[in-house]
Amino acid sequence: MLEELGIRAKEAEKELMVATTVEKNAALKSIADALVMSADEIIEANAKDIQNGIDNGMSKALLDRLKLDRERIEGMAQGVMDVVSLPDPVGRVLNSFERPNGLKIEKVSTPLGVIGVIFEARPNVTSDAAALALKSGNAVILRGGKEAINSNTKIAQVMRAAVKETGMNEDVIQLVENTTRESSTALMTLNEYVDVLIPRGGAGLIQAVVKNATVPVIETGVGNCHVYVDRDADIDMAVEIVFNAKTNRPSVCNAAESLLIHKDVAKEALVKIKNKLDEKEVELVGDKEAIDILKNSDEVSDGFDIEEATDDDWATEYLDYKMSVKIVDTLEEAIEHIYQYSTGHSECIVTESIDRANEFMDRVDSAAVYVNASTRFTDGGEFGFGAEIGISTQKLHARGPIGLPELQSFKYKIYGNGQIR
Amino acid sequence: MLEELGIRAKEAEKELMVATTVEKNAALKSIADALVMSADEIIEANAKDIQNGIDNGMSKALLDRLKLDRERIEGMAQGVMDVVSLPDPVGRVLNSFERPNGLKIEKVSTPLGVIGVIFEARPNVTSDAAALALKSGNAVILRGGKEAINSNTKIAQVMRAAVKETGMNEDVIQLVENTTRESSTALMTLNEYVDVLIPRGGAGLIQAVVKNATVPVIETGVGNCHVYVDRDADIDMAVEIVFNAKTNRPSVCNAAESLLIHKDVAKEALVKIKNKLDEKEVELVGDKEAIDILKNSDEVSDGFDIEEATDDDWATEYLDYKMSVKIVDTLEEAIEHIYQYSTGHSECIVTESIDRANEFMDRVDSAAVYVNASTRFTDGGEFGFGAEIGISTQKLHARGPIGLPELQSFKYKIYGNGQIR
Repeated sequence: MLEELGIRAKEAEKELMVATTVEKNAALKSIADALVMSADEIIEANAKDIQNGIDNGMSKALLDRLKLDRERIEGMAQGVMDVVSLPDPVGRVLNSFERPNGLKIEKVSTPLGVIGVIFEARPNVTSDAAALALKSGNAVILRGGKEAINSNTKIAQVMRAAVKETGMNEDVIQLVENTTRESSTALMTLNEYVDVLIPRGGAGLIQAVVKNATVPVIETGVGNCHVYVDRDADIDMAVEIVFNAKTNRPSVCNAAESLLIHKDVAKEALVKIKNKLDEKEVELVGDKEAIDILKNSDEVSDGFDIEEATDDDWATEYLDYKMSVKIVDTLEEAIEHIYQYSTGHSECIVTESIDRANEFMDRVDSAAVYVNASTRFTDGGEFGFGAEIGISTQKLHARGPIGLPELQSFKYKIYGNGQIR
Repeated sequence: MLEELGIRAKEAEKELMVATTVEKNAALKSIADALVMSADEIIEANAKDIQNGIDNGMSKALLDRLKLDRERIEGMAQGVMDVVSLPDPVGRVLNSFERPNGLKIEKVSTPLGVIGVIFEARPNVTSDAAALALKSGNAVILRGGKEAINSNTKIAQVMRAAVKETGMNEDVIQLVENTTRESSTALMTLNEYVDVLIPRGGAGLIQAVVKNATVPVIETGVGNCHVYVDRDADIDMAVEIVFNAKTNRPSVCNAAESLLIHKDVAKEALVKIKNKLDEKEVELVGDKEAIDILKNSDEVSDGFDIEEATDDDWATEYLDYKMSVKIVDTLEEAIEHIYQYSTGHSECIVTESIDRANEFMDRVDSAAVYVNASTRFTDGGEFGFGAEIGISTQKLHARGPIGLPELQSFKYKIYGNGQIR
């Protein structure tokens, strides 16, 4: 069954691989129009998912992520139109050179081929991922969660019809309608037909994919991000950066989870940061030094008490109004702590010292390393890449925001006139 | 046990990641010197492997690949010195831009981290892989076959001592001395400490790694390469290219395995090619049309009879003096045949038509696509990349020759002055 999807995807990919920008943009515009035109049908399908969610006791937060209304569908269509305006990443000459024997070699960007996307509750991922895949010349096999199956099925149906209307093979977009665990595992091992797998969702999903996939994976998303307030920090700036990185949107992967403060500025910085975080009722856990500072200061505002951090705390991505705090003796100790506990997503140093900033940025091995800015900027839109399909935390192929250029492979074209070895 | 190696590799990598070019080149020169100085010891260790090979009935060809003498060891040292002369790939600014909010973003190349290399009989891979890894700032864990364990152990020991002499942490190079299947599987799943796995060897090894690894893999090497002789080909050029691609070195992955000929030129081209291949006693298998042409021609020289090709033949990488031949009606049929049977390594069209060359090169989805040149050029040295660690046939991260730039990841360095979202 899933193999059939694979066969059809490979077949559709043969044409999509060499489709022109005009053809691809026409298909995308058709998708955007169709989503808006079919809003009522999509909302109707979504209502079934919502009802199932309520029946199954789904949390309010998850129900909200699942819900589609006209405004959100228009947002999805706008997302597709945004992809239309992005440059076509296919067929760019990345390098070109001539060898002494006269061979001319061109390194040219090409689509990856067939991309499998495994994702959780949010149905808007269906159109996001399909649009990015199509523009970058990749056929896509979407496998969403069972919570959104009615919405996803309808959205996929609408998109496929819209693509077909422009004369393109509709199998460039396919949805796995079977949402059992078996269908997920089958997709992860469909090496003959799937070139790359991108999981989008929580740590559990991502680990399951990393563990079970034999298809190459681009790992995304888990962010145990650190902000380190250095000895030479501007403390007021540090307060703003920590507050923003933690509370601007705590549920996303580029939110900060752990705060490190140099001992020389710990007293002033921690009290100010704690008082600011209290505005959003952020719960703190800390090491003994941090607890001592807060217990012994008479400038601490009322708010949550700080608890002692366990070893698990240092490794935890809370995705919530909670943060761990550690006082470090040296920049070295901060870097070592990050080596040990970071997931390689985003880390920040707040400092006025160029030397210390450079040491931190050279030695911390994460996708994005910041000096004096919030970790919340690790995002395709904020980087100016346009849309993104996720944030890669692995080092192979793509690191950081995965935009259209990251959805490309390349090939070498070699022009000869009879050369032999 | 293997985890210990991983812990030590990660620790060593912290320093190697930020080592200067001068430091890395000093370590490489020290390795090259030490290999030559220790030639007698290495030959002595190698003699044990050779004796074990003879006792276990190893074939002559394999014994030859296993054998080290002074000349080969000098070749290994020269290989290391060649890497010294290559540019340092670490720390290159790949892109740099400023955002409207004033954030300055730099995309900078960084080492992948810890690379695991799993390889088969040839002990020279030990020094090749170690040198490329070290120059590109990556710690390496080498896991060679049991046939070469005495040689590999001695070579690794010599290299580690040489590295240490220059003040570098010797754990940047480590060898897994346990050559059981378990140690191999353990390395494939050491996600916490190994960033990338590169298998070097035959199809069996590579498939085992793809199937069992949870660490990201760069797949290398299997090449079912095609030469297509087009309707508009220069037939004499085609004869030379096919002969070279097939017989120059049949045991390597960029050798041609399958010949496709357009029907309009099939009679002339096939007879000439067959007569030329007979010089090297190449065995042919073919479809009915090919067999008919050869049976009915009175210009065919004596030599092997052509047998009928099975479906397996079209998919087989012979790595030997054997080739499959198919007569196709159209360029389209040639491209479809390649879609079906190619391993995505290297394919060539011989034609004088620019349009037909471009169609072939755009639509054939392989690492290297040639017009009018032998597939044997798919090689890091021939591409001018210097040394290579293998030829990637996957589309993620690296495709074609894997040189120093392909052994890099990248990170984003973001410079702010208090930016928040």
